[in-house]
Amino acid sequence: MSDHGLSGKTIEILHEIRRRKPLVHHITNFVVMNSTANTTLAVGASPIMAHAHEEMEAMAAFADALNLNIGTLTPYWVDSMIVAGKAAGKRGIPIILDPVGSGATPLRTEAARRILEEVPVTVVRGNASEVMSLSTAGKEVKIRGVDSLETVDAVRSSAHAMAKELRKVIAVTGEIDFITNGEEAIEVHNGDPMFGLVTGTGCAATTVVSCFCAVEPDHLVATACALGYYGLAGEEAARASNGPGSFQTALYDALHGMSEETMMERLRIRQIATKP
Amino acid sequence: MSDHGLSGKTIEILHEIRRRKPLVHHITNFVVMNSTANTTLAVGASPIMAHAHEEMEAMAAFADALNLNIGTLTPYWVDSMIVAGKAAGKRGIPIILDPVGSGATPLRTEAARRILEEVPVTVVRGNASEVMSLSTAGKEVKIRGVDSLETVDAVRSSAHAMAKELRKVIAVTGEIDFITNGEEAIEVHNGDPMFGLVTGTGCAATTVVSCFCAVEPDHLVATACALGYYGLAGEEAARASNGPGSFQTALYDALHGMSEETMMERLRIRQIATKP
Amino acid sequence: MSDHGLSGKTIEILHEIRRRKPLVHHITNFVVMNSTANTTLAVGASPIMAHAHEEMEAMAAFADALNLNIGTLTPYWVDSMIVAGKAAGKRGIPIILDPVGSGATPLRTEAARRILEEVPVTVVRGNASEVMSLSTAGKEVKIRGVDSLETVDAVRSSAHAMAKELRKVIAVTGEIDFITNGEEAIEVHNGDPMFGLVTGTGCAATTVVSCFCAVEPDHLVATACALGYYGLAGEEAARASNGPGSFQTALYDALHGMSEETMMERLRIRQIATKP
Repeated sequence: MSDHGLSGKTIEILHEIRRRKPLVHHITNFVVMNSTANTTLAVGASPIMAHAHEEMEAMAAFADALNLNIGTLTPYWVDSMIVAGKAAGKRGIPIILDPVGSGATPLRTEAARRILEEVPVTVVRGNASEVMSLSTAGKEVKIRGVDSLETVDAVRSSAHAMAKELRKVIAVTGEIDFITNGEEAIEVHNGDPMFGLVTGTGCAATTVVSCFCAVEPDHLVATACALGYYGLAGEEAARASNGPGSFQTALYDALHGMSEETMMERLRIRQIATKP
Repeated sequence: MSDHGLSGKTIEILHEIRRRKPLVHHITNFVVMNSTANTTLAVGASPIMAHAHEEMEAMAAFADALNLNIGTLTPYWVDSMIVAGKAAGKRGIPIILDPVGSGATPLRTEAARRILEEVPVTVVRGNASEVMSLSTAGKEVKIRGVDSLETVDAVRSSAHAMAKELRKVIAVTGEIDFITNGEEAIEVHNGDPMFGLVTGTGCAATTVVSCFCAVEPDHLVATACALGYYGLAGEEAARASNGPGSFQTALYDALHGMSEETMMERLRIRQIATKP
Repeated sequence: MSDHGLSGKTIEILHEIRRRKPLVHHITNFVVMNSTANTTLAVGASPIMAHAHEEMEAMAAFADALNLNIGTLTPYWVDSMIVAGKAAGKRGIPIILDPVGSGATPLRTEAARRILEEVPVTVVRGNASEVMSLSTAGKEVKIRGVDSLETVDAVRSSAHAMAKELRKVIAVTGEIDFITNGEEAIEVHNGDPMFGLVTGTGCAATTVVSCFCAVEPDHLVATACALGYYGLAGEEAARASNGPGSFQTALYDALHGMSEETMMERLRIRQIATKP
């Protein structure tokens, strides 16, 4: 598909989200519950945040996608994710994992790996350090908080191998986002440094991926289009703001109101050649 | 009381809130803790968020109203609400329940019903689906997330019967809000579609009701005035904003700074005839 | 050090924060997790929010400061703070305590006192009521929510004695902030009444103190400079806003973008004479 095609596809998916208003069940961290719920609404979908073991299966019965995020996890919450993930898996809805801080502490790395083993996760979205921590080659990765220190090539090759082995879509976000299903790969060149000055913007990127996957069965394309659209909303917001506070505000406005013209002209979502 | 009278009454209650700065104890969900605390402050009252069983009675001893919200509940939190609710009941302060998602899962429906049985709730504020799930006639209601699918008349008649039976004020919010105590009823025509694009705006409406009930003993009138004022703040915010991000920001500004002229001219709070 | 010197020192510390991007581990309350994370980022540091007992020691191993806040505490969270605090103490990183609501309920007062006994806290930042509740002379203090009712002199003298006895920096914030280490004292005259209309601005002040202490070993000076800078950001934000919503947004912008000229001209951080 041409780049132009992926811009058009992004618009098409957004229309479908706004038509169907899919319900995205989040089991996510305390820091971003509000901002990811607002992101879901700005995109056009419906959020529900719930984590009690007693209602995980009931939620899975009417959700259109499940978004798992280990940002402020405790064992109780990991169990919530496992129960919800298994129920979501039975229904076949997409399950998107954000392994926040995986690699930073054993609790997080083990939680992310356990979820990947026990739940049929569809897409993993993380920064380079997080994704590397989940690959079998990732044990010696240096981590500092949730920042990335890896070189781009090593990370891409590791993500590609992991996607192939686990049969998932792996999205590594950073200055240029890299999305792969182990066969094909897409780069997203949209984004803005202001994202780094607002908490939870990575988590919100994963939320947008969840909204897109809720309505688009090609999850490689859905993930790439979601990240392009979110990155471009950040570019629009950065233009309209004076700092991180007004950027956050403008980001919701841009997610809600971005015109099709802007998307056709400025989305930069590119299929790239994978290793020959 | 004439409509004009209810506009004046709204202004009077707001003055009283700002004079007394009542303390509103919230046991609420993780998504809206920040936004409902800020709503409380913008209205002129003082919020306190606390849920530890060990301090529920101590909190009740100096709170002026108790706001219960089951949005991200677990059994621990429901118990917090029961303990705090009983202590608040002994002191006779108003208790306002927001049954978020009641009807959507058994855990939520049962939690809301248990609270209504064990705690002397003063006001219930929910959307049509939530309120219907609590009525004895509400068992076959179709629920989708926290949205409403019921027809207006069935809901009103059910709310009216429930209010009469339980001797509470029931507020059903939607395009037109309906507030009843089982004897009298009031409609509120203020509001804006932008509320639907920001998370927690229903929860915040309940918070405003809690602030109003903290100082006004006529809880039917207090609830209606609170919803009119909140709805009008949304209208003001929608005028001043470009999307859901700037709407949220402008909403706090409007709640804090709305002029008496605006309220006298634009509040639309109307007593209506109940069934003959 | 002259007042001018403390303005220059503030700029110097900010440069150091932005150069080193210290990681500030927060164990804080649900209401302010998002806003204090964003405050940390706007200042130029990196936040991490984590509370699971299983990862407290791992977090302490790479954090540059530990921020403890008892705002929505339960016993589990107090234990998290104790475990993390002991690990942080072994590494010698600064530990900053915000005793939110201490004095309001026994649970909070006892939690704050237990933390002070078991953890080598470096700085305590609270309002007058909270600080008084922690002093041996503070038992008969009248508390109403988290507001302050004490007279300035009694509080200062109590804070001074407590700082001397416990060998900590005690910061009492209010219209004029008072910071003492039991030997020297500093006043901060920056600030704005709008802070009182936004939730978590006290908690965020403590976060800024944590960021400053992470890079500046003189914690008396670091605390005073942090509070001056934060207060001045509030003054800047108040100028640029129409109410509490736009104030919050403008506050992040000001924390991120405040010019050195503004700081040199308008910071009002003054060393004061202590009792002869």
